[in-house]
Amino acid sequence: MEKAYIGVDVGGMSIKAGIVNLNGEILYKDKVVTDGKHDDVFLKDIHLLLEKVIEEGKKLNLEIKGIGFGIPGVVNNKKGTIDKMANINGRYLPLRDSLLDLNIPIAISNDANVAALAEQKFGAAKGLKNVILLTLGTGVGGGVIIDGKLFEGNEGKGAELGHALLILNGEKCGCGRNGCYEAYASASALLRLTKKYLNDYPNSMMWDYINHDLNNVSGLTSFECAKKGDEAANKLVDEYIMYVAEGMLDYCNIFRPEAFVIGGGISNQGKYLTDKLQSYLERHNYGYETAPRSEVLVATLKNDAGIIGAASLLMD
Amino acid sequence: MEKAYIGVDVGGMSIKAGIVNLNGEILYKDKVVTDGKHDDVFLKDIHLLLEKVIEEGKKLNLEIKGIGFGIPGVVNNKKGTIDKMANINGRYLPLRDSLLDLNIPIAISNDANVAALAEQKFGAAKGLKNVILLTLGTGVGGGVIIDGKLFEGNEGKGAELGHALLILNGEKCGCGRNGCYEAYASASALLRLTKKYLNDYPNSMMWDYINHDLNNVSGLTSFECAKKGDEAANKLVDEYIMYVAEGMLDYCNIFRPEAFVIGGGISNQGKYLTDKLQSYLERHNYGYETAPRSEVLVATLKNDAGIIGAASLLMD
Repeated sequence: MEKAYIGVDVGGMSIKAGIVNLNGEILYKDKVVTDGKHDDVFLKDIHLLLEKVIEEGKKLNLEIKGIGFGIPGVVNNKKGTIDKMANINGRYLPLRDSLLDLNIPIAISNDANVAALAEQKFGAAKGLKNVILLTLGTGVGGGVIIDGKLFEGNEGKGAELGHALLILNGEKCGCGRNGCYEAYASASALLRLTKKYLNDYPNSMMWDYINHDLNNVSGLTSFECAKKGDEAANKLVDEYIMYVAEGMLDYCNIFRPEAFVIGGGISNQGKYLTDKLQSYLERHNYGYETAPRSEVLVATLKNDAGIIGAASLLMD
Repeated sequence: MEKAYIGVDVGGMSIKAGIVNLNGEILYKDKVVTDGKHDDVFLKDIHLLLEKVIEEGKKLNLEIKGIGFGIPGVVNNKKGTIDKMANINGRYLPLRDSLLDLNIPIAISNDANVAALAEQKFGAAKGLKNVILLTLGTGVGGGVIIDGKLFEGNEGKGAELGHALLILNGEKCGCGRNGCYEAYASASALLRLTKKYLNDYPNSMMWDYINHDLNNVSGLTSFECAKKGDEAANKLVDEYIMYVAEGMLDYCNIFRPEAFVIGGGISNQGKYLTDKLQSYLERHNYGYETAPRSEVLVATLKNDAGIIGAASLLMD
């Protein structure tokens, strides 16, 4: 029987589960919609989904060695609980305990952590041992791989790289502090910045791009107009790159990784984005004279990173 | 023969070497003055000092298993070089290669790193596995212990915790960036802040404390006058505590350590300092709701931390 692991990617809208083999290939995938459910229904939904997936694993003649979770929130990886998560009212949900009857080892981590593990084991950073993942999406997620192993901090509550300060007492952050990296480097922060530039530059090409309706502003507005040569959009992109890269310089000085992997919606800009980031880091000596190079890579596993990374939690 | 290690604490003014046993006890100590020497003399001085200490080890019937260095600068722990250091003109000094004839394993790390290792193995954080050391001195040094092991980053150039931003484009930092944690949390930053408060509060008790001469301002001025109830000094100390603690909140979110150990000149304030820091971290939920407590401890090994920590680099 081939060994395999189940990875569960918990999102705000749906819970996706997949069976993953030791090569990081997804052999089977299923999902359930979660939007607006109560805490107890949430845990029951996960249980039902897993029963189905385990059944499917038997049909495929797979030996399921473990189940891993990627949670978009705060977990306790010792107790196996979800301590805080958007769209869920409760605190300290006993996820692992609710699955004890399945009799399969369970591991729980944060969504950015498992994405980092996926990219390092099977994606953009395959073969590297010291890697930082940053997801530039609604928020900024962080994942840290040290010496080939996922670093999670006490209770799995570390590696919150979006929640170190970029500017003390700066922009309001969702976490309660003011001035976090996330408040400047997230896609949401880019939207805020784009609206500010639109206001300041009434003749920018960006106004045409959004059909003169601020509701059409997206993460693409600045980047696409910058590529077309719009001056205001280029200035905007430079400012945004500066925020993202200054946080990366911090993580150069703190972790000195071999590579950064950039994920999240903004990473769809691909090499256009990473070239600018790489060049910024280089111009600033990776934070320090005599410091070694850190490669800036684009995440490659995209939407599958959650399932593959969660499944990887219990792989050796 | 008892096993022992030599620890070398390289400072701006002197090079101290000691023989340390597996209990972290210093069995013999020696030093040489270094001030103003040229690079080649510097390496020769170290060689001569080590010859003497090794000879002394033989007399004490000790088996020297390794020599470790704590360097106040940037090292390359793979190549065994000192890549950058104040008071030394050269770059990439081949420290390890210059000692090959001693035929003893050599390890090289940064001074704050070895202090962290010393405090975790034999000092304030003995028994804990995940510890952050911060030295509040001329600069801010950082050391990171993860899972009982020293984390140094690629080439040993990580864990530069003083050089993550607190305020983007803020105060000038010695590293070349503007707004680093060090530029707000170091003893030097406290001096700058004290002078600003003296200027703003002409009736502060601090003026008497310094005999109305700004040359007498020290790291003690604010703390000692705050303890005596001076309003301006208390405001000043609160502002300084805020800077130090906000950086610690960042490191809570990034590393989620069991404990912080505070060293450096400012740590002479002892519990008065750590109580204020602990209280700040607590009021801010250690950076996050549901986050576990991080204990704030005072470094206990003081001036011996360098020798003991350097000697510990090659201990199991």
